[in-house]
Amino acid sequence: MKNARLVPAAALLGAATLALSAASPEASSDLRVALERLVRAARVTNGAYDTIRGLTDTVGPRLSGSPADARAVAWAEAALTARGFSNVHAETVTVPHWERGEESAEIVSPVPFRLSLCALGGSVGTPAGGVEAEVVEAQSLEGVDALGGKAKGKIVFVWKVMERRSDGSGYGATVPIRGAAASRAAKVGAVGALIRSVGTSNARLPHTGSLRYEEGVPKIPAAALANPDADLIHRLLADGKTVRVRFALGARTLPDAVSANVLGEIPGREKPEEIVVLSGHLDSWDLGQGAVDDAAGLGIAIEAARLIGQLPIRPRRTLRVIAFANEENGLAGSRAYAKVHAAELPFHVAAIECDDGAGRVSGFGWTAGLSAERTLASVAEILKPFGVGDMKKGGGGADVGALRAAGVPLFSPIQDSSRYFDVHHSADDTFDKIDREELNTGVAAMAALAYALADSEAPLERIPEADRIVRRER
Amino acid sequence: MKNARLVPAAALLGAATLALSAASPEASSDLRVALERLVRAARVTNGAYDTIRGLTDTVGPRLSGSPADARAVAWAEAALTARGFSNVHAETVTVPHWERGEESAEIVSPVPFRLSLCALGGSVGTPAGGVEAEVVEAQSLEGVDALGGKAKGKIVFVWKVMERRSDGSGYGATVPIRGAAASRAAKVGAVGALIRSVGTSNARLPHTGSLRYEEGVPKIPAAALANPDADLIHRLLADGKTVRVRFALGARTLPDAVSANVLGEIPGREKPEEIVVLSGHLDSWDLGQGAVDDAAGLGIAIEAARLIGQLPIRPRRTLRVIAFANEENGLAGSRAYAKVHAAELPFHVAAIECDDGAGRVSGFGWTAGLSAERTLASVAEILKPFGVGDMKKGGGGADVGALRAAGVPLFSPIQDSSRYFDVHHSADDTFDKIDREELNTGVAAMAALAYALADSEAPLERIPEADRIVRRER
Repeated sequence: MKNARLVPAAALLGAATLALSAASPEASSDLRVALERLVRAARVTNGAYDTIRGLTDTVGPRLSGSPADARAVAWAEAALTARGFSNVHAETVTVPHWERGEESAEIVSPVPFRLSLCALGGSVGTPAGGVEAEVVEAQSLEGVDALGGKAKGKIVFVWKVMERRSDGSGYGATVPIRGAAASRAAKVGAVGALIRSVGTSNARLPHTGSLRYEEGVPKIPAAALANPDADLIHRLLADGKTVRVRFALGARTLPDAVSANVLGEIPGREKPEEIVVLSGHLDSWDLGQGAVDDAAGLGIAIEAARLIGQLPIRPRRTLRVIAFANEENGLAGSRAYAKVHAAELPFHVAAIECDDGAGRVSGFGWTAGLSAERTLASVAEILKPFGVGDMKKGGGGADVGALRAAGVPLFSPIQDSSRYFDVHHSADDTFDKIDREELNTGVAAMAALAYALADSEAPLERIPEADRIVRRER
Repeated sequence: MKNARLVPAAALLGAATLALSAASPEASSDLRVALERLVRAARVTNGAYDTIRGLTDTVGPRLSGSPADARAVAWAEAALTARGFSNVHAETVTVPHWERGEESAEIVSPVPFRLSLCALGGSVGTPAGGVEAEVVEAQSLEGVDALGGKAKGKIVFVWKVMERRSDGSGYGATVPIRGAAASRAAKVGAVGALIRSVGTSNARLPHTGSLRYEEGVPKIPAAALANPDADLIHRLLADGKTVRVRFALGARTLPDAVSANVLGEIPGREKPEEIVVLSGHLDSWDLGQGAVDDAAGLGIAIEAARLIGQLPIRPRRTLRVIAFANEENGLAGSRAYAKVHAAELPFHVAAIECDDGAGRVSGFGWTAGLSAERTLASVAEILKPFGVGDMKKGGGGADVGALRAAGVPLFSPIQDSSRYFDVHHSADDTFDKIDREELNTGVAAMAALAYALADSEAPLERIPEADRIVRRER
């Protein structure tokens, strides 16, 4: 896309925001016809399912900077090209490169037991023989602080159960422990940190995800235990037993590597310079196949855009699919996109991010100017009979978060997450976990919303200045 | 127990079998009172749950011949003594001693992927660097045979999906592959055998269990893939891809080791020489904690007998709890018991085996003489209001199977097995999978049945001669 195509940002930002409901009766009827057609096509498509299979089975897990990450970039370019997208290209992104290596752990006493654990992303490794020490338990980050001298030379173990909720909110309530436990434990003198997995599975497969080391605090190795293993240690400690654990992590951080955001477009028929983003992320954690996180989101985004591209008349604006690099451990792809496309951001009329799995979608969370509510209500009215018409305030995501500063209206699906955290970030995130029918509710919802946003007479009111800063943990 | 207490076997075998329903009205009323009391006590007990926790958390996995197996024997003696059993003792059993060692596997091409697999029990190890070869798929043992020359130098992979059924019958339909795949593959020239796990879990945790090498056939290494991993290979092959796999097993068979059956009794008040056996097995596979298989069965047996022992009046006959050694990979405990106690077997009036997990129990399968049906119907009538009164023909188990030749009436619980094979023989067989309320339905059923059998005026009619031979795969 050339800058010459851009009109002055101020003119666009100052444009009246015309609700869809205020459009002529013919336009409204045309919109209904298009959305219903998209929803019906989405229900029976194999497109998203096959795309997910392509990425998971022929690329596999693809942590940033790994050889598979490079294969994923090539796959995405080929996949978008094969599906008829225009302007398909990769935009180079410098990403962190962390490797897990081999890892092992065991209860040494009171009774030998091989533990199932995984390093948290970004953790330092242990010395070759591992770390062996007595375990002391806390049940919150404040509890870690309160251990004080009791933690010196010990392994600090944070035991907090993530609650299963359909909106996935149990994750937000627990994940800060994953991020901060290592440095908080190091501050009270611990030699290692273990946490109960930030997940809802009762399988003996641990849940990885990034940690953050605080500046100036010794970096100690940190890992998540599978929930049954964490609960065993918790029970033994509750019995008053002294528990000694040994764990060894081969983790290491290598020099930054090169990856890429991959883009493809369905050009708009009237206002091709105005853009609706449909996105997911291309990278994944290393333990599974990255199927629900986030081949699913990419599969939904790509298929939704493809279905729109097959309509007899394309929408006014351009649909841009973005497969973001490095969502999982750095968000370098998100930052790079916002930087490279800074001049275009005033012409981004909306950005939808799909990164909550493959569960049933019932609508969208949205973040935009207040007048958007009326506009979205008219879309919702068309979509409600299809079960995908819920519209709730509060939408966005880790990758499109970088567009918030430019006021771009943000959307993310309202998705049934009750089983998402059984597999998310674990070895269990494999293709077999995808249910095609549930997945296609996401395609239907995303295709319909993206079309409505891309074909409306005027763009939605943008996010007010005061609301353009946010931090979201993923 | 002394031989002097035994009356001639012929006299007992020839005794009229008196159905409980034919007893005096007072006796029937007394039985009802006792059974209802037991069922009510079982519903609220923590006994079985705590026993299971003791064995799983303080002993852990306990494969025959391992150091943990010896700890389990000591635990069982202490547990039975602490719970007030009489004549508690261990009877030495010589058991096989197989060790898993370290194991690893990966798809080498078309795309690198680390596989989750485990050696089948008894498998030989691979050379140190593992076995690497192209994979050829069959979907049955006959399919393996039919590969013929196509299998030469390859890894034969048997892909058959075990069906989830509440009666667990999907297991019997699939487990023959586990036993025989290695030798059948070796016969057509394969260098290794892989199977889809004989389990219903979609977690990436494989299912172990014994194989049997045929005499005179080369022993090749054999392992089970976690179901998602097996399905991935199946999909790649179905796409026409050439799939190469490398797997390394550190498995080895050591010289036979010493273990023990552990026994404890609640002596009968009138006919102490007549015995009702309540049993489970003490050993377990090595991957999990052996919680549902079979700490659960032992916990149920021990608690059922303990509750009966706490009644104001003990039953006429002796209850004998047996914690069998080596059920999983040899049945040496079962054979040793039948041999050592041969002279007593005519005085074994019944044997109940609990080895189908911790799921809800609705009654019992039974194998005995035909007239037993009427007797059991009268017990069932009392138990049906409590949901544990189903009586169906066909009961027994791997350990008590050795008593069948002596005609001992055999019982096993009718148990909801719909989730049993999600964890059975896998790393997921851990204490957290036990549901106390479901477990206690087993305690209730077993206590009631054992009491009725131990207190009836006459024993059940024994298994007819013609029906005393059976083979059961476990």
